[in-house]
Amino acid sequence: MKLWEKGYKLDQVVEKFMTGDDPQLDQALISYDCLGSIAHAKMLEKIGILTADDYQQLKEALCTIISSAEAGTFRIQFEDEDVHTAVENALIAKLGNLGKKLHTARSRNDQVLLDLRLYSRDWLLILMDEVLNACTVLCHFAEEYQFIPIPGRTHFQRAMPSSLGLWAGAFAESLLDNLELFKTTYWLINQCPLGSAASYGVSLEIDRAFTSDLLAFRDVQNNVLYANNSRGKFETVILSTLVQVMNDLSKLSTDIIIFSAPEFGYLSLPEKFCAGSSLMPQKRNPCPLELIRAKSATVQSFLIQSLEIIRALPSGYNRDFQETKRPLMQGFETTWSSLKVFSKIFSELKVQPDQCLAAFSSELFATDKVLSCVKMGISFREAYKQVAMEPQSVSMEDPIHNIKSKTHLGATGNLGLKQSLDKIKQTRTWIHQLQELWKAKKHSLTGS
Amino acid sequence: MKLWEKGYKLDQVVEKFMTGDDPQLDQALISYDCLGSIAHAKMLEKIGILTADDYQQLKEALCTIISSAEAGTFRIQFEDEDVHTAVENALIAKLGNLGKKLHTARSRNDQVLLDLRLYSRDWLLILMDEVLNACTVLCHFAEEYQFIPIPGRTHFQRAMPSSLGLWAGAFAESLLDNLELFKTTYWLINQCPLGSAASYGVSLEIDRAFTSDLLAFRDVQNNVLYANNSRGKFETVILSTLVQVMNDLSKLSTDIIIFSAPEFGYLSLPEKFCAGSSLMPQKRNPCPLELIRAKSATVQSFLIQSLEIIRALPSGYNRDFQETKRPLMQGFETTWSSLKVFSKIFSELKVQPDQCLAAFSSELFATDKVLSCVKMGISFREAYKQVAMEPQSVSMEDPIHNIKSKTHLGATGNLGLKQSLDKIKQTRTWIHQLQELWKAKKHSLTGS
Amino acid sequence: MKLWEKGYKLDQVVEKFMTGDDPQLDQALISYDCLGSIAHAKMLEKIGILTADDYQQLKEALCTIISSAEAGTFRIQFEDEDVHTAVENALIAKLGNLGKKLHTARSRNDQVLLDLRLYSRDWLLILMDEVLNACTVLCHFAEEYQFIPIPGRTHFQRAMPSSLGLWAGAFAESLLDNLELFKTTYWLINQCPLGSAASYGVSLEIDRAFTSDLLAFRDVQNNVLYANNSRGKFETVILSTLVQVMNDLSKLSTDIIIFSAPEFGYLSLPEKFCAGSSLMPQKRNPCPLELIRAKSATVQSFLIQSLEIIRALPSGYNRDFQETKRPLMQGFETTWSSLKVFSKIFSELKVQPDQCLAAFSSELFATDKVLSCVKMGISFREAYKQVAMEPQSVSMEDPIHNIKSKTHLGATGNLGLKQSLDKIKQTRTWIHQLQELWKAKKHSLTGS
Amino acid sequence: MKLWEKGYKLDQVVEKFMTGDDPQLDQALISYDCLGSIAHAKMLEKIGILTADDYQQLKEALCTIISSAEAGTFRIQFEDEDVHTAVENALIAKLGNLGKKLHTARSRNDQVLLDLRLYSRDWLLILMDEVLNACTVLCHFAEEYQFIPIPGRTHFQRAMPSSLGLWAGAFAESLLDNLELFKTTYWLINQCPLGSAASYGVSLEIDRAFTSDLLAFRDVQNNVLYANNSRGKFETVILSTLVQVMNDLSKLSTDIIIFSAPEFGYLSLPEKFCAGSSLMPQKRNPCPLELIRAKSATVQSFLIQSLEIIRALPSGYNRDFQETKRPLMQGFETTWSSLKVFSKIFSELKVQPDQCLAAFSSELFATDKVLSCVKMGISFREAYKQVAMEPQSVSMEDPIHNIKSKTHLGATGNLGLKQSLDKIKQTRTWIHQLQELWKAKKHSLTGS
Repeated sequence: MKLWEKGYKLDQVVEKFMTGDDPQLDQALISYDCLGSIAHAKMLEKIGILTADDYQQLKEALCTIISSAEAGTFRIQFEDEDVHTAVENALIAKLGNLGKKLHTARSRNDQVLLDLRLYSRDWLLILMDEVLNACTVLCHFAEEYQFIPIPGRTHFQRAMPSSLGLWAGAFAESLLDNLELFKTTYWLINQCPLGSAASYGVSLEIDRAFTSDLLAFRDVQNNVLYANNSRGKFETVILSTLVQVMNDLSKLSTDIIIFSAPEFGYLSLPEKFCAGSSLMPQKRNPCPLELIRAKSATVQSFLIQSLEIIRALPSGYNRDFQETKRPLMQGFETTWSSLKVFSKIFSELKVQPDQCLAAFSSELFATDKVLSCVKMGISFREAYKQVAMEPQSVSMEDPIHNIKSKTHLGATGNLGLKQSLDKIKQTRTWIHQLQELWKAKKHSLTGS
Repeated sequence: MKLWEKGYKLDQVVEKFMTGDDPQLDQALISYDCLGSIAHAKMLEKIGILTADDYQQLKEALCTIISSAEAGTFRIQFEDEDVHTAVENALIAKLGNLGKKLHTARSRNDQVLLDLRLYSRDWLLILMDEVLNACTVLCHFAEEYQFIPIPGRTHFQRAMPSSLGLWAGAFAESLLDNLELFKTTYWLINQCPLGSAASYGVSLEIDRAFTSDLLAFRDVQNNVLYANNSRGKFETVILSTLVQVMNDLSKLSTDIIIFSAPEFGYLSLPEKFCAGSSLMPQKRNPCPLELIRAKSATVQSFLIQSLEIIRALPSGYNRDFQETKRPLMQGFETTWSSLKVFSKIFSELKVQPDQCLAAFSSELFATDKVLSCVKMGISFREAYKQVAMEPQSVSMEDPIHNIKSKTHLGATGNLGLKQSLDKIKQTRTWIHQLQELWKAKKHSLTGS
Repeated sequence: MKLWEKGYKLDQVVEKFMTGDDPQLDQALISYDCLGSIAHAKMLEKIGILTADDYQQLKEALCTIISSAEAGTFRIQFEDEDVHTAVENALIAKLGNLGKKLHTARSRNDQVLLDLRLYSRDWLLILMDEVLNACTVLCHFAEEYQFIPIPGRTHFQRAMPSSLGLWAGAFAESLLDNLELFKTTYWLINQCPLGSAASYGVSLEIDRAFTSDLLAFRDVQNNVLYANNSRGKFETVILSTLVQVMNDLSKLSTDIIIFSAPEFGYLSLPEKFCAGSSLMPQKRNPCPLELIRAKSATVQSFLIQSLEIIRALPSGYNRDFQETKRPLMQGFETTWSSLKVFSKIFSELKVQPDQCLAAFSSELFATDKVLSCVKMGISFREAYKQVAMEPQSVSMEDPIHNIKSKTHLGATGNLGLKQSLDKIKQTRTWIHQLQELWKAKKHSLTGS
Repeated sequence: MKLWEKGYKLDQVVEKFMTGDDPQLDQALISYDCLGSIAHAKMLEKIGILTADDYQQLKEALCTIISSAEAGTFRIQFEDEDVHTAVENALIAKLGNLGKKLHTARSRNDQVLLDLRLYSRDWLLILMDEVLNACTVLCHFAEEYQFIPIPGRTHFQRAMPSSLGLWAGAFAESLLDNLELFKTTYWLINQCPLGSAASYGVSLEIDRAFTSDLLAFRDVQNNVLYANNSRGKFETVILSTLVQVMNDLSKLSTDIIIFSAPEFGYLSLPEKFCAGSSLMPQKRNPCPLELIRAKSATVQSFLIQSLEIIRALPSGYNRDFQETKRPLMQGFETTWSSLKVFSKIFSELKVQPDQCLAAFSSELFATDKVLSCVKMGISFREAYKQVAMEPQSVSMEDPIHNIKSKTHLGATGNLGLKQSLDKIKQTRTWIHQLQELWKAKKHSLTGS
């Protein structure tokens, strides 16, 4: 039974097309939908649309649905179209006429906005936590292998001495920078759309600040048309942030695939992470890393899909928005599993110090030789040209000594890992506080 | 049991990540995988690797799997990783050592290439057929409403007299042009990759032309490394073609949404195609058309995803390719369902001739007035300027008379629909012949 | 003369391909390159590589180049390859051996990073200022036409009463939200890469914090490999932010195109903004708005291009990065000109209040009728169904009274524009302070 | 002076925005525009709008403009907006009232369609020719280094013996497959849009078949609305084809970068193709190949930009189309220069046969060992497992002997290069014939 039924039935082919995979996707939204409904009901009570008893009954019924959802027993049916319909139908089945009152002063438009905000808020914190896990693994690796030298490359050619520590530390800092994007994204979407209804508000004196506060939002999303216009927009802001994480993981994966190829051999992957070939018995392939790299393109395509869907739509709700739900949800899940898999593999990577050392050749010290000439008073460009014309004049140095001796900020001898570790700690606290706040609010909403 | 197992087990988190949704997606490939295996076995018999009896037993077992797959009872398990493993394991379970012989001279790399080619070949013909259905509906509409005038627009402003016939005919021709892209795509992918193995051939005297012919391919895909390098590439060629169809449907949907809005009212959608609002009782929304429009962005994102994944990979198989399977499969399905829904809706669109006529105003005849001055000997640019400076001099004409009187090639009075209808007929025959050929080959492969 | 010349010449075809449009694009970087060089020279003096007199001479020569660049007389030649080479060659031409000392302890890799950071920092503030101009225009429009009612739409169908004030206010809030993305983007890129050299630091005791402070950076970008890995990454963060602005302008443009079409007529564009047709004398087309809409796709494609270029590159500098320069620069310019044109047009839009009122029909009040039944005690869903079954029971209301009477947060009667105007003011101050800081630092660098 | 001027002037900021870079881009279209105009004039003469003398004068004036354009002396001014206006203004300046007659029965809409078709037709043949050059270089390389073995890779790990011949041959076949896409693209766009005017035809008895034939088109593009709806669409078909070429070159470049890295050393690039570093004197970087790889993302972004711009536009001309001109033109140029540079570099690549041989290790022969067991009667899967458990049992073989001995279709010992060389030859003939046809038609149009 659709919420909007009024004496006609949909064509079956078309209905199937319209419903799409909403019933499946919306399973993840049931609890959020119910929590939003409890807050909405409490507000309706406050403004006199519901009695205290009405509210109490609705709250209990909604809490029951939350429990069923958590137990996996509440299934959204195809006929229900979406989570909002499934919940309203369940309430009417249980509470009769009272169930028909809950939709007062709202639309599925602001309901789905709300559900996706609450859902995304949770996911963003979970992902930030996973990013911090990856940073931690990278920092620990950087500390442990701080002074294992490897040839630094530019243009995939040998350039200058580098180290495994510098390499891993670079990615820790990149991921930590991403967390600032996460924080702003969180701040941005943490606005309550409830009460915007179908974009044009309602002719009732609803109290939007009240529901916003009950649901732990930073603020009400003020303009009711903007609330609907931000559908899709906020999704693209989120996906832009996820893309940054995936691109970092992709670059890291590319590096590891290269560093663990037989011609390099700096790293080796434990075989439990390597799939084999059906034909070639000797193969142990870095499949999970190749998949992370590919999935960075996938999450990028979710961003593009969402950007394109909304790019030139007129104001107000358009059904096109429905097609932005899957890329958002799969974006979260893909980024999460990629981070999980990355951290797991990276924490067990084996380093081959001998192979790293064996990879050094004299050319890697050419620039250091130029700079030693500079210290003796030759101008840089002259020194450069001399060394360029007589490459054989550059002799092999001790790589370990070389990387230890470079001690300016951020160089191989001065990685600044403590700074990153401190930042990890602070961000964990920030996440934890937000999670506790929401937990407390949820407890008030569902408690007796 | 993995095909490549050799004394170690995969980490569970990583295994789940690597397997992904292959077991679900590969369900669609079971029959193709078995047909390819029958052809491969027949070739192995021909070159003396299998006996006639071996071949017979394998063929029968494979035919049984095909039947189970068609009955929906053959399920690929998570532990099986993919369809190739599931089938080999099933054969070994049934035939013992004989089952272990089938993988001789091939790799999962050329197997999955083969499966996807056969799968895509079928889908391309099915989609061409659906495109022809849409063309037919458009042509019939164009014939029926050939002389219903509507204001033609440019820049979303009123430009010159047009007609519903011209409008529908334009899309019929566009879709027919797409069919040429389909034909070339079909021709391109209709090359047999079998025998390329892991990209480097095998040290056995296999007969690639023999299997190619058994499977109704146009030709062997010669260079064995190219066979693997074309993974992803052929997918992007296919998706480029699907994108053209979806973009046409998107433009059509945009037009219908506009033409059926209350301010226009040229068309109206039967209510069985219109979903309502949970809040606003009067709403009947053109949701399926909005979704087709959005899904054109989705299919576009599948193309971009696939292009990106393969863009800078080194030669040979890389696991990244696995991530191109879903966009291909969902690309086919999305285009198919969009075509189905479009044809269904379009064939029942209601035309409001009075609203169409009422939309005319004198400005639409300004250009015709200029050209009538030209006929009287005034130069075009002078006549243009006169009319531009005195717009009130343009008077209302009879729209129907106007559109009928324009009879040059492709104008409102000379739509050339017969040409399109003839082309539809010819293409149907072409499709039918290819489908019959493959049917006959399949019959030979599976017959006793 | 290339900086790296060492006894061989490049193939001419290849050299042209490699140089590309760098000489043209780099014209915009000359001043930034010289300012960075002055700071670098001052640091080299501090650590004893240059004498005080060396520094003074270099500074003066660099200031002269800045002046020439501002006067448009310093042209980067094709043979110079890029701005860095052009400047070093000019210094050597003027100062002889002293000019050859400046490149000590740096690489073109960190130089171009620095130039692009300084360039982007300036552009981001300029764009934020333009976004605020657009917000201001929107807020003033919203104030002036606060109570001009228009039909609010969903699914391009008529939904509920809305207003021009609500509509314009929605976009003001959306653009203001974008400013938070701008701030974080600014914060992120405001890290000094100088001293990272070719990704692996240098064997000299350089003082990176010193140059960072001279150039008004928030902080040193610590890890030297991360500095290079952030090439492209920071560009994609910037472009993700620009895309949000362009998407808002695109939606706005789509709305204006629709609202000013003859079938709507709520708005009209002064003819000085409308191009005509070469054929149809009556046409006045909303071309600039169509172009803004199209350019939103262009800026989106710059983002995708940049994301894709860097997505799977190995660590360290790769020449692929060069191809991210144009999309960044054109991204800034396209967004800037689109904002300029939008604000100009919007500030002169003409409103047609009579057409707005005339667009109302009774169906727009159906939801209000449902809610009035709710106030009388009928449950929402029952009231909804009653009205749905008897649409003729809904009668026409006074649109102006209706929109004024909706006074909850963010509704048509309570737009909250003061909040937006306050935010505009605060952000102006923030921008101004950053611009003043940089101005002061530049003055110290170039002053005598 | 704009063609559509009618008593008002455009706002200057907006005019600049609208005109954009059309005057620069349109320089490439002058000759095509004039040729189209000659054909159009001839048709106007045929149907009695122009006299024979009118036609003769117009033709001569247009031929003069073509000559000026070829000499580089005809410059489109900013005030002229575009090529069509510049040419009409020049004609009126020279011929007075007669110049004002030429625009009869056409619009800039069909004119620009025509210009871009003629322009694209020429470019497609030029590019096909360049693709054939690249194929030729690849085939000759494959012939010369047919039996130089290299380790074949999958997952960037060592897999089985391969050869430089197999590798180069793979790309020759891939590029040859692309030519089929080129042919269909050519066929598709080779339809004459002239006479479609502003999408709605004209009220004159124009002879569209006549102009189509004069301009060597395969056929008239029939439906006049479809002609305009195909703006952008045909551009995306072209760019889809270019993307295939660029992706092949990108993969090839990635391979060469790897194969010429010091850890591999199979190939080396002559230094005249390698740029150096400003800091590190020893560097010789494969910059042009990195740029080709990056530019494959650029051309991909042109495709995406064009697809997005047109995806959801309503029927008829929209100014958004203007924004598809640059990606098309830059797409052609970028693909052309990438092909040129690739062929040049590849034809001078140096092969290091000793390094190729030195790269072999016993593991590469594991699969061959399995298959030799199969020949002795062991089932494949059993043999596979035995070898997998005892990898040390695999011994080193002679790589050259190995690759020569694999002689099935497309394997290292049977590359099938003759087939590719024959196809190159046939396609050259096809291109040549089309070029000759167009040359002859141009001669008739401009001859006296």
